[in-house]
Amino acid sequence: MSQGDAAGRPRPAPIPAAALPGAAYRASARIRFGDCDPAGIVFFPNWFALANAAIEDLFRERLGIDFHALHAERGIGTGFVHAAGTFFRPGLMGDAVHLTPVLRRVGGASYALDIHIHRGEEELARLDLVTATTDLASRTSVPVPPDLRAALLRYGAACGAAPGQETSA
Amino acid sequence: MSQGDAAGRPRPAPIPAAALPGAAYRASARIRFGDCDPAGIVFFPNWFALANAAIEDLFRERLGIDFHALHAERGIGTGFVHAAGTFFRPGLMGDAVHLTPVLRRVGGASYALDIHIHRGEEELARLDLVTATTDLASRTSVPVPPDLRAALLRYGAACGAAPGQETSA
Amino acid sequence: MSQGDAAGRPRPAPIPAAALPGAAYRASARIRFGDCDPAGIVFFPNWFALANAAIEDLFRERLGIDFHALHAERGIGTGFVHAAGTFFRPGLMGDAVHLTPVLRRVGGASYALDIHIHRGEEELARLDLVTATTDLASRTSVPVPPDLRAALLRYGAACGAAPGQETSA
Amino acid sequence: MSQGDAAGRPRPAPIPAAALPGAAYRASARIRFGDCDPAGIVFFPNWFALANAAIEDLFRERLGIDFHALHAERGIGTGFVHAAGTFFRPGLMGDAVHLTPVLRRVGGASYALDIHIHRGEEELARLDLVTATTDLASRTSVPVPPDLRAALLRYGAACGAAPGQETSA
Repeated sequence: MSQGDAAGRPRPAPIPAAALPGAAYRASARIRFGDCDPAGIVFFPNWFALANAAIEDLFRERLGIDFHALHAERGIGTGFVHAAGTFFRPGLMGDAVHLTPVLRRVGGASYALDIHIHRGEEELARLDLVTATTDLASRTSVPVPPDLRAALLRYGAACGAAPGQETSA
Repeated sequence: MSQGDAAGRPRPAPIPAAALPGAAYRASARIRFGDCDPAGIVFFPNWFALANAAIEDLFRERLGIDFHALHAERGIGTGFVHAAGTFFRPGLMGDAVHLTPVLRRVGGASYALDIHIHRGEEELARLDLVTATTDLASRTSVPVPPDLRAALLRYGAACGAAPGQETSA
Repeated sequence: MSQGDAAGRPRPAPIPAAALPGAAYRASARIRFGDCDPAGIVFFPNWFALANAAIEDLFRERLGIDFHALHAERGIGTGFVHAAGTFFRPGLMGDAVHLTPVLRRVGGASYALDIHIHRGEEELARLDLVTATTDLASRTSVPVPPDLRAALLRYGAACGAAPGQETSA
Repeated sequence: MSQGDAAGRPRPAPIPAAALPGAAYRASARIRFGDCDPAGIVFFPNWFALANAAIEDLFRERLGIDFHALHAERGIGTGFVHAAGTFFRPGLMGDAVHLTPVLRRVGGASYALDIHIHRGEEELARLDLVTATTDLASRTSVPVPPDLRAALLRYGAACGAAPGQETSA
């Protein structure tokens, strides 16, 4: 049986950390005891929580966008409309991992990132995340704010074309 | 821009609860304060945690398989190799939701389920989960245990063919 | 060595479920795979998350106060200023547990509850939680809203005096 | 009303970071979007999860004890029998915090730590944690392993006497 997704597509193959764009931002994290389940490995929803933390780091340290202020002061939400993970190898308690976001596209009111999670050179998980920007008060779609759009496009350009990446306004 | 996944596929459309297989198992859950984020909606990794709880309920109440014993006594892991969520509408604190697992396929050493999460008739989220069965001690792939395979196939047969569903030994 | 708290006080002794006030509200929950850690038992912060869920149930089903509306519409926070847990026995994946809140006191701008967590007759954990009511916008202390105060006092009176319980306006 | 604990004791007062033992280990963490609740502040169980992560860091970076191997290879559990938190000020999304563990005592089969959580000089939370060492297979009490005991006592001696601290074999 293929272990692909609902549509039977083949699952992606892991890539070594060395194959990631050299200019990509790389967040560091450590797998915690509390992230792991009775099987001794990362409870899979926690991969997504780690990825969200990496995006917060990307915003603060690379994009220069205050994730907190974006939500709390500007009233812009960055909720996900799609989130997929392919899990290649289990993460274990104590593992030091790196999370590398690669911009896949920026649309009118959404953007998409892949997050590669590596332990050393070994890719443990690949997350495919699509964010839609919303007005938090009305919970309706709003355009990606211009400063965020510009920062994302700069980041995407610095990283160069990832396989399958497309950026469009 | 399409809000589809990495490959640019269109995202699935929500279906009303009434369109689910009548014989499908339906788990109940409530969205908790602690499940929600500063945007006031379910923090997306928690949708996956809720889905895992629904699978535990499915095992216990419908499949007749002791999820706990499977792990702790029989040493069989049911970790995920793929997990995708499409989020149609935000879940809010206090919402009563139903989670309906639909079997998509059973393979030699894995099986795939969709979990539909509804609030009333409205589908809030659709999760696409692929589990690989493993030996917990060696962390290597093992065949789906015969009792679990039989129970899954019985469940799938009772529910009838879901759109796109295929079952194979 | 005593296993008491920072001040060296003896730790409380577990009581059977039968010793709880007969009129007390009892919330049901199940210990999930994802609540447990690599030691196979409830990761201790999750006891507090389960307790918070039980308080939400108490509000909705017994006090008649909409916890969600209290926060989202009335702008009243019910954050904790103190939270203590004594853990008697580990909770295991799959366990059905009951959480019984017992009001300890209602003050001007705060109230205190004990939450007893039982598996059958066996008390697994006892939580001691002190909530301060706040204005969410200014994050300053506000009196316990009259409807909540009245509901808490009614609940406390129905349950009768718990050991060490005091209620005061 | 006092906001003290079940026994009506006054709650501890926050201390500035400068008042902590100079030799104490200091773990760094950041408050994440996903750690916060609809009130926009740290959901209180997550303070305990952050504290557990700080203890893992203390073990690895200061005590020289492999927390992972202790559990997974040596079969020793370090579960909590008591955990209390006093919350002085809310933690907000994006906050950089420091967690400073101070050893309070080492007993025959348990040890107690305070964890002070500061944002800059301001103490946000104080946690009082009592760990009992157990044999994970039988879930019974075992003596604190000699290497861990020695490391804890060395750490306690380096930090000097904290207010109320006592160490005993």
